[in-house]
Amino acid sequence: MPETLRTGIVTNAAGREVPEVVNGRARVPFRGVGAYRPEGNKHAPPIATCADFPADGDKRATDLRTALESAGLRDGMVISTHHHFRDGDLIARQIFDLAAEMGVKDLVWAPSASFPCHAPLIRHLESGVIHHIEGSMNGPLGDFCSTGRMRGTGILRSHGGRYQAIQDGDLRIDIAVIAAPTADAFGNATGDRGPSACGLLGFALADSQYADHVIVVTDNLVPFPCLPWQIQGNYVDQVVEVDRVGDPSKIVSGTTRVTNSPERLLIAENIARLVRDAGILRPGFSIQAGAGGISLAFALFLREMMRDPEVKRRLGVEEDVRASFVRGGSNRYLVRMLEEGLTPCILDGQTFDLEGVRSMRENPTHVNTSPFTSYNYHGKGNFASLVDVTVLGATEVDVDFNANVVTHSDGKLLHGIGGWQNCLFGRCVVLAVPSVRDRIPVLVDRVTTLVGPGELIDVVATERGIAINPRRQDLLDALRGSDLPIRDIREIKEDVERLTGGPPAPPKLADEIVATIHWVDGTVIDAVRGVLA
Amino acid sequence: MPETLRTGIVTNAAGREVPEVVNGRARVPFRGVGAYRPEGNKHAPPIATCADFPADGDKRATDLRTALESAGLRDGMVISTHHHFRDGDLIARQIFDLAAEMGVKDLVWAPSASFPCHAPLIRHLESGVIHHIEGSMNGPLGDFCSTGRMRGTGILRSHGGRYQAIQDGDLRIDIAVIAAPTADAFGNATGDRGPSACGLLGFALADSQYADHVIVVTDNLVPFPCLPWQIQGNYVDQVVEVDRVGDPSKIVSGTTRVTNSPERLLIAENIARLVRDAGILRPGFSIQAGAGGISLAFALFLREMMRDPEVKRRLGVEEDVRASFVRGGSNRYLVRMLEEGLTPCILDGQTFDLEGVRSMRENPTHVNTSPFTSYNYHGKGNFASLVDVTVLGATEVDVDFNANVVTHSDGKLLHGIGGWQNCLFGRCVVLAVPSVRDRIPVLVDRVTTLVGPGELIDVVATERGIAINPRRQDLLDALRGSDLPIRDIREIKEDVERLTGGPPAPPKLADEIVATIHWVDGTVIDAVRGVLA
Repeated sequence: MPETLRTGIVTNAAGREVPEVVNGRARVPFRGVGAYRPEGNKHAPPIATCADFPADGDKRATDLRTALESAGLRDGMVISTHHHFRDGDLIARQIFDLAAEMGVKDLVWAPSASFPCHAPLIRHLESGVIHHIEGSMNGPLGDFCSTGRMRGTGILRSHGGRYQAIQDGDLRIDIAVIAAPTADAFGNATGDRGPSACGLLGFALADSQYADHVIVVTDNLVPFPCLPWQIQGNYVDQVVEVDRVGDPSKIVSGTTRVTNSPERLLIAENIARLVRDAGILRPGFSIQAGAGGISLAFALFLREMMRDPEVKRRLGVEEDVRASFVRGGSNRYLVRMLEEGLTPCILDGQTFDLEGVRSMRENPTHVNTSPFTSYNYHGKGNFASLVDVTVLGATEVDVDFNANVVTHSDGKLLHGIGGWQNCLFGRCVVLAVPSVRDRIPVLVDRVTTLVGPGELIDVVATERGIAINPRRQDLLDALRGSDLPIRDIREIKEDVERLTGGPPAPPKLADEIVATIHWVDGTVIDAVRGVLA
Repeated sequence: MPETLRTGIVTNAAGREVPEVVNGRARVPFRGVGAYRPEGNKHAPPIATCADFPADGDKRATDLRTALESAGLRDGMVISTHHHFRDGDLIARQIFDLAAEMGVKDLVWAPSASFPCHAPLIRHLESGVIHHIEGSMNGPLGDFCSTGRMRGTGILRSHGGRYQAIQDGDLRIDIAVIAAPTADAFGNATGDRGPSACGLLGFALADSQYADHVIVVTDNLVPFPCLPWQIQGNYVDQVVEVDRVGDPSKIVSGTTRVTNSPERLLIAENIARLVRDAGILRPGFSIQAGAGGISLAFALFLREMMRDPEVKRRLGVEEDVRASFVRGGSNRYLVRMLEEGLTPCILDGQTFDLEGVRSMRENPTHVNTSPFTSYNYHGKGNFASLVDVTVLGATEVDVDFNANVVTHSDGKLLHGIGGWQNCLFGRCVVLAVPSVRDRIPVLVDRVTTLVGPGELIDVVATERGIAINPRRQDLLDALRGSDLPIRDIREIKEDVERLTGGPPAPPKLADEIVATIHWVDGTVIDAVRGVLA
């Protein structure tokens, strides 16, 4: 049991000081990987009846305001949105502008993630329309939260953690608003087609299943049945037509372009070599390569190796090395692997470019998945632990392989967790990180914020060498004789500090907790302190 | 509120005497269509955790017995199976043979339906291994129940009613056993491929979502990921390999062949003419034509009309009349309509022949649906009420258009409800019935068992004429001038009675209630009395 430090602050199993109560609700401190056992039952939404819905299936409301009024929008409610449009979301802002017009206060916004396009919501955070955000905060909203200006405490969860929290009744959504590129009047909806096609809608699955009231918003209403029904109309209360539901051109962002930095390309190539030399690259292997320039480049290098005659000779196979599946964040590179037959399928959680959208629409083996199938830790298993090699990023990694993806060394909360924590359950987890960013070392003695425990991180790949977690003796053994630049993580860190003149300056932090970071099982793994101006 | 008659027996809103308590649990008597409002929340299964499941996703158990032991099989549990193999099911018998071996008693069997192939389970009903059946009973098990030999009271629900009961926690399943033609070791499963392919697995959806413990049994284990995952492995506890999971050749039965009786063909043709003449046949219309020889023949006649130049001329269209969707029970005739472009999709709840299986496997617009999407009355709408014309059968229809599908006039319970009650919510519901069966009139003064209220039944089509429900003045108006043999239902009945020498002999029934018939909202619409020898 964690020891109580100051009032309501305890040290959790990872040695981090976390609050016992967040936004008025008791929270369980992190107990260690796999150590917390959930009790009780899943959240049980109210039973609906067809008697309350139109027999002709036409659930259209005049406009979003009418729909919010019918949903009974009132002070203190939890409103959710999804982020499949990433920086091209157009709906979240409309919801809270309407809430402000309607004089509603103290709402909780529970997006699956927020982006710079949501900066206009700061006004509603300041005025009290929104009390706090439960969801990843990328950019301006994270900055706002960091400086202690949000009324409540931000709660950051992974994609799987969000599904878990909704499923388990920890995050109870009153009204879910689902922006849908195509939908019918019954509420069946899909993201893979229509003028605003964004791919899939898996981040909104939990919202559709568990929210009390579900509103689908679309700019492409089609006759029943909308196929495929990624979101099932049987969960939907109302459908609203708007002129434009999102800007899909904005789903492509800096994290979805291949790096052209020679140092980062080196990292990517080294990871591909590691996968090859450690024997992970073999027929039927599987990878997850998400967003981020290095990760994309890794997929390209790996593709070359899967077709490399020398690799095939060593493996004793005639044909190209075929994966059993690849997981994405899909993009044109994974789509090419699918279309070339290098993988029989893409299990896709989020399309990162329009090639991904096209492929999902056209190819039944480009499968839309959800945090339920892929990441929910409170399920009967999930897909993340079945992946042979997973390449991820980080803002900081410490000498015990603990990693941070949400804050920088100055303490500022600028990034969400995404599926990052969930992916740590892969069989070989590689963090691909430059050793220095903006002259600040990425390798540190102790991460500013603990998001992923070192015991789950197997490899840290920098341009100055590759560090293997000493817990993975099997991997070290497999790589004996490899000409990869394998080094001790502390050595790489010392190199970097010689270059930068020392470790990063300690962040200037307030005592005040502005956000909590939740582990995949809902426990609190760390707290984020406010940044002093 | 219903008036209490004998102890525990009340008269419900349909005038039927039903028990207030069934198998020890209080039940709500039928209150009228749309009149009962559910309270409370959906059933909430226990929260699982990945910590309890193998990280490599391999959930295989040695054999079915081991799996049942791990699941903690014990006295009084509720065990469910699905009926997608119809009379070719091979798994249910194995489960209860094993339960008998293990010395377990008083189980409740909750199949989505039972068939003649399940006659061997009578031994387990007699010995007390099975206490009673909650599920449709086609043939021998219905006969067994009818004669008062089942220890508990049988509970018959529609497909949608079964989903509703499981969703609402009325029917709580301890162990679901899902026979799957193809599955991976994680538990993802599909019915559309593999040596025993039976089409889809939608009847097992609720079981997978809500049962405490889910076992997938397959004879075709494939590497992860099994695609499509009609059943999601994240709901599955264990996977068992067996030699043979079912006999798909048996999914074709008497109810899935087109009639060759001239009288029944006449009925089918008249219904198609009615659909045409009433203006229901128009671009974008929709039909449900389920199993049953007349229903299949109707689909064939309708197809001709959709391509008929005269029909197109009258509708002012150039192209063949295309539906917006057709619902099945799919079969070769619906598949042909899909492949000819007469419908953009089949929304399929159950494949009735191997052409249906093939089409579902090959064509993404041959969609596998479930009782959740199609029939669940305690959802936010369902598909059944969106269908323009639905053709169904019945064992008896009375002069108020009330109908029976479960018992014959001698009182014997020999049929299940299937999706029949759910389909009554279609916009034009046609019962296609011969006026006489085995020299016994089908049109009666009062149905032996009330399964569907007359207010939902619009047309009764017999070879002696077509009766339109007087409540449907709009339909009568639309058909004014048609040369269809439209007659008063009482006139047709009198004709028949002249032929047969009078109405059917009243059944010889005991006081004892052997089964209850539940309406789509879970209320008790009628009770089935034991048949005296």
